[in-house]
This record gives sequence, C-alpha cells and structure tokens, in this order.
Amino acid sequence: MKPYVVGVDIGGTNTVFGIVDARGAVIASSSIKTLKHANVNDYIDELYTGINNLLVAHDAVDKVYGIGIGAPNANYYTGTIEKLVNIPWPTPLPLAQMVSEKFGGLPVAITNDANAAAIGEMTYGAARGMKNFIMITLGTGVGSGIVINGQLVYGSDGFAGELGHVIMKRNNGRLCGCGRTGCLEAYCSATGVARTAREFLEIRTDASILRNLPIEAITSKDIYDAAVAGDPLAKEIFEYTGEILGEAFADFTVFSSPEAIILFGGLAKSGELLLKPIRESMERHMMPTFKGKVKVILSELKEADAAVLGASALGWEAKPLATAQPVAQPATPPPSLPA
Amino acid sequence: MKPYVVGVDIGGTNTVFGIVDARGAVIASSSIKTLKHANVNDYIDELYTGINNLLVAHDAVDKVYGIGIGAPNANYYTGTIEKLVNIPWPTPLPLAQMVSEKFGGLPVAITNDANAAAIGEMTYGAARGMKNFIMITLGTGVGSGIVINGQLVYGSDGFAGELGHVIMKRNNGRLCGCGRTGCLEAYCSATGVARTAREFLEIRTDASILRNLPIEAITSKDIYDAAVAGDPLAKEIFEYTGEILGEAFADFTVFSSPEAIILFGGLAKSGELLLKPIRESMERHMMPTFKGKVKVILSELKEADAAVLGASALGWEAKPLATAQPVAQPATPPPSLPA
Repeated sequence: MKPYVVGVDIGGTNTVFGIVDARGAVIASSSIKTLKHANVNDYIDELYTGINNLLVAHDAVDKVYGIGIGAPNANYYTGTIEKLVNIPWPTPLPLAQMVSEKFGGLPVAITNDANAAAIGEMTYGAARGMKNFIMITLGTGVGSGIVINGQLVYGSDGFAGELGHVIMKRNNGRLCGCGRTGCLEAYCSATGVARTAREFLEIRTDASILRNLPIEAITSKDIYDAAVAGDPLAKEIFEYTGEILGEAFADFTVFSSPEAIILFGGLAKSGELLLKPIRESMERHMMPTFKGKVKVILSELKEADAAVLGASALGWEAKPLATAQPVAQPATPPPSLPA
Repeated sequence: MKPYVVGVDIGGTNTVFGIVDARGAVIASSSIKTLKHANVNDYIDELYTGINNLLVAHDAVDKVYGIGIGAPNANYYTGTIEKLVNIPWPTPLPLAQMVSEKFGGLPVAITNDANAAAIGEMTYGAARGMKNFIMITLGTGVGSGIVINGQLVYGSDGFAGELGHVIMKRNNGRLCGCGRTGCLEAYCSATGVARTAREFLEIRTDASILRNLPIEAITSKDIYDAAVAGDPLAKEIFEYTGEILGEAFADFTVFSSPEAIILFGGLAKSGELLLKPIRESMERHMMPTFKGKVKVILSELKEADAAVLGASALGWEAKPLATAQPVAQPATPPPSLPA
C-alpha cells in the first residue's frame, strides 16, 4: 500500500493542500489562491503543479494512495460541487473526475468541509475509536458531519448532515442564509453570535465594553475578548448561544444517540466559556434516557493542519473513478493509473 | 440455510408470535396474554409452548434460523428490556438470553417495536431497496426506526431513534410522558391528536359534531370519523397535526436526508387526510437543498401481520449469544445449537 495521501481544502479565499502519512503527520503543505483563476481548468493546472512540486521535493511522486478534497457543497456520491458562492466556475462541477484525470487516474474523493473534519477527527483526532459521534463546525456558518456505525452519513442524495439548518426558533426567528427563518446557524455561527451581540446592545441599556465598538463591526472574537475581560453582557451572549446549542444537541441525541458531540471552528476556541453553558443546557433539555451519556468536547486536530488532515483522511477511502479517462502522460505515468 | 424465522411482538396486552418464511409470508401465528404471568419465567414457558406448538403443527421444529423480538424499551446491543410500564417483571430483563436458552441456544435478537417495524418495512414492505429512510409509528406514542446506509441506527447505547421526543414547541409546550414539554409525541400521537381536539373544543366556539361526544372520551378515531363526515373543526385538527409533523420531517431531513419517511400505526390509517397537510407543511419548511426529494408514504405491511413480520425480519440477523448457556435438550437438540 502506498504510504501517503494528499489532502486539499478548498476555501473561498485559499486552497490549502498537503502530503499526509498514515499516522496523520503532515509531511509538507502549501496553498494557492482559490479565486486567482476565473477558469477552473487554469485553477486545476496550478493545483496540480503545486501538489506535484511538493511530491517531487519529498520523493513522494509514486507513493500517493489517493487524494481527498474538502469543498463547500461537495457531493461525495457524484464527486461534484453542486453550488459555488463567490467563485465563478460553472456548476455542477465534476471536480473529483477533473482532478483524478489531471493526476492520471489517481483515486479522488470529495466531500464538504464539515464531513471532511469529521473523517479527520475519526482518523486522527478526538473521535478515534468512536463509532457514533457528531462533528459540529462553528465558523461563519454552522456545519456538521455525522458518523453512525463508523460511517459518515451522506443520506440518499449525498447532502445529509446539514444540522446548522434545524429550526430552533419557530416564531419570529432570524432570517438564515438558506432563505428560511430560525435556523441554528442564524444564532450559533460566529456571525450569529455577532447578531446576538447587536440585538442585546440595541434592546438593553446595561453597560458593556462592547459599546465602545462600532456596533456593525462587532465580531465573535470581540465578544470573546470582552467575556474574558469579565464583561457581563458578553458572558450572557455566550450563555444564550450555549443554551440554544444545548437544546439542539439534545434533539440530535434522540436521533442518533452519539457518544460525543465534537466542536470545531473559530467559535469552538472559546473553550469553557461556550462549553459550560452548552453542557448545562444539553443536560437540562435531554430526554431522561440519554442524560449524562453524551460528551461535548473540542476537536483535537491542530487548526493549522485540520482542514488538510480531514480532507486527506478521505483519500484513504477514495476509489478510482469508473468514468475517469486517464489523460496521456507520455513520459512517466503515475503508478496508480488503473490497469 | 434454515427456511423460517419466528417473530414475537410483545405488547402491553398481547404477545403475538408467528412463523415467517424468507418471502415474508406468515405461515402461522398465535398469541398469549402478556400480563397473565407475574413471574417472567412462567411467561417464557408459555411463550415457548405456544411457539413450539406452531412449529410442530407446521413441521418446522428444526427449520428455524432465529427468533426476532419486538418489545418496548428493548436494547438491541444488550438483548435486555431496560424498562417496563404496567408489566411487573424485573428490569433490566435479559430477555434475548432467556428466550435463547429456552430454545436451546437458538439465535435471538431483540429491538423496540418501531425499529422492528422499520426492519420489517425494509425487508418486506414499502422500503424494499431503500438504503436511507425513516419509519414513523403514529400510535399511542410516536416511535421511530431510522435506517442509514441500509443499517438500522441504534446509536452508542442502543436507544437511538426516539424521534417522538424532538422538541417542537419550545414555549408553553404540552407535558410529555417523558417528563419534558413540547415533544412531537405530545402533539402527533393518537393521544396527542385527542388532546388537540380537547384544546380546540375548549378554546373555540364554532360548531362541531365532536361536541356531541363527552370531551374526555374523544379518540383520534372519533376525530377521523368527524373529518370524513366533513366536520371543519375535525379537519383543522388533522391540518394542525400535519403541520407539526411536516415541520419535524423537514428537520429530520437535514439530519439524514432520507429517500422516504414511512408512516405506520393507527393514525396513519387516516391516509390523505393526514398525508396532504404533512406533505404541504414539510415542503414549505424544507431547506431548499432537499425540496421535492423526500417521499412521505404509508407502510405497505398488512396491519394484522406487521408486528410479527417486523420482529421476524430481525431473526435473520440474530446471532447466537456469546453468553448463552444451552440448556439440556437430551432427545433432539435444536439444529442451530452453537457447536
């Protein structure tokens, strides 16, 4: 078995990629600008060159088992990106096939970033040995990757695990980016938390150091800093956020009874400030059958490596695409070209 | 491979059991009173005699592959019943092991009734060929069996799939049997629907033929009959119930993206009266990604056979218990006694 996989994390700004070994060590990594190329073929050319340079520099050209890619709205079943926001490439984009062809038929698997994080956590992080857990990513949005019986849940169409879009407020809920109102994401993403701050500051009159900031510019980091500095209103924002997350986690538990719910992403760095109210709320709202059974813990993946690690873990389960048309590679065909 | 399985459905009043072949035909069935015996060993003795009589009468004594049992609060992993309501046997009750020992080591698997219904539907009913679906049983309570990647979801502790206990009303919700408030079950079970009728009749003043009945005695069947007779208030009760179920189904979809949600149980017999408002509400509340993708359909299992069929289907995947102590069976040991 070839000793390496390549992980690629496609973000709105940067595409990060790296070579990873079977123990989860990132041997080497680099990045390119996602938006530099209006034409997706030019983008794939630059990605190929970037990855190939790393492989050559680390004597790994013939040693890659597969490539895993994490990207927003990526469908594991079809290998396509269904929808792109702020990136002008045509959709649905058959990215897995395009990258596989570029690499002479190397197996490529693709999934969304939250699912990639869950696979990474299961392979290298806090979920090692767990068969049933839920990964919640608290970033610009709220994403999720669900693992049941040791398998990632893709559902009938490849899009399962959109737990940021359960409805938490059925009356007078906030507008969500998905077009509906009251979604978990509208309250508990980094941007949702900033919205909570603006609501609290507008509705209430008590003092807060957050009032020193221009209200529209307040970020979740500002609220974290204020809470750490002892600001009562900022602490209440974390309690409000944790209350809603705890209610949601109690509902998730009656569905899949996970061993743990694992938090990842910018907001998860708030640590106990967020974990404590989540755990208290979750237990208070938990169906008696499940009380005291579900751990709420933080990801154990290093943030700098997590995206690449998570995507790379998918590379181990990538299979050669049945429809892949190996491109001509006259001089030295990659070793894993299908026979 | 032996050609038959035995299915046992343990209800609060009756225990129904039958011999089922690989095509899902119920060869023979019978029943005993669950509550006749205060001592569980006496109950198992009578169950053994009842099943054995059927097997002898149908020349099937040596032809049973396994026994599947559906029972409330049964844990697939441990083979135990964790909790009993209105039945005086000690819990946790190691029922799978006790029955297996009684049958000389025959493999026995046990799960709750809603999970058994899901397995039955997948093996013999509307979910044949489906890898991702959710079974919702609308009876005295609201139960569920969730299938993902072709496998029933038991979760980390064996109790996953309690979808009757997601919270649908976070403010001023009805008290649920689980001790919390606002659960789906408190609104959309047969008893929940009767509660809705009482609420509507008390709060409102418009005419309804339901007002001819003693208010505390109104059942979901009465409401169904009134709706079929054209009673506007009764129809509104079905619309209210369908609205809440549709909201819940939209939330379930972001979790596991099922191909279908299949309804079973007394209330499901209301047919289009309930299906139409469910489907309309579900689509109206659905995250755009999933709009138009999820079927809401009725079980295809005949009600008289469904409980036994569902439980029996579990018999095909039963394994000999590692801890089973085969009892002495001097004359003719059952053929599937572990070697």
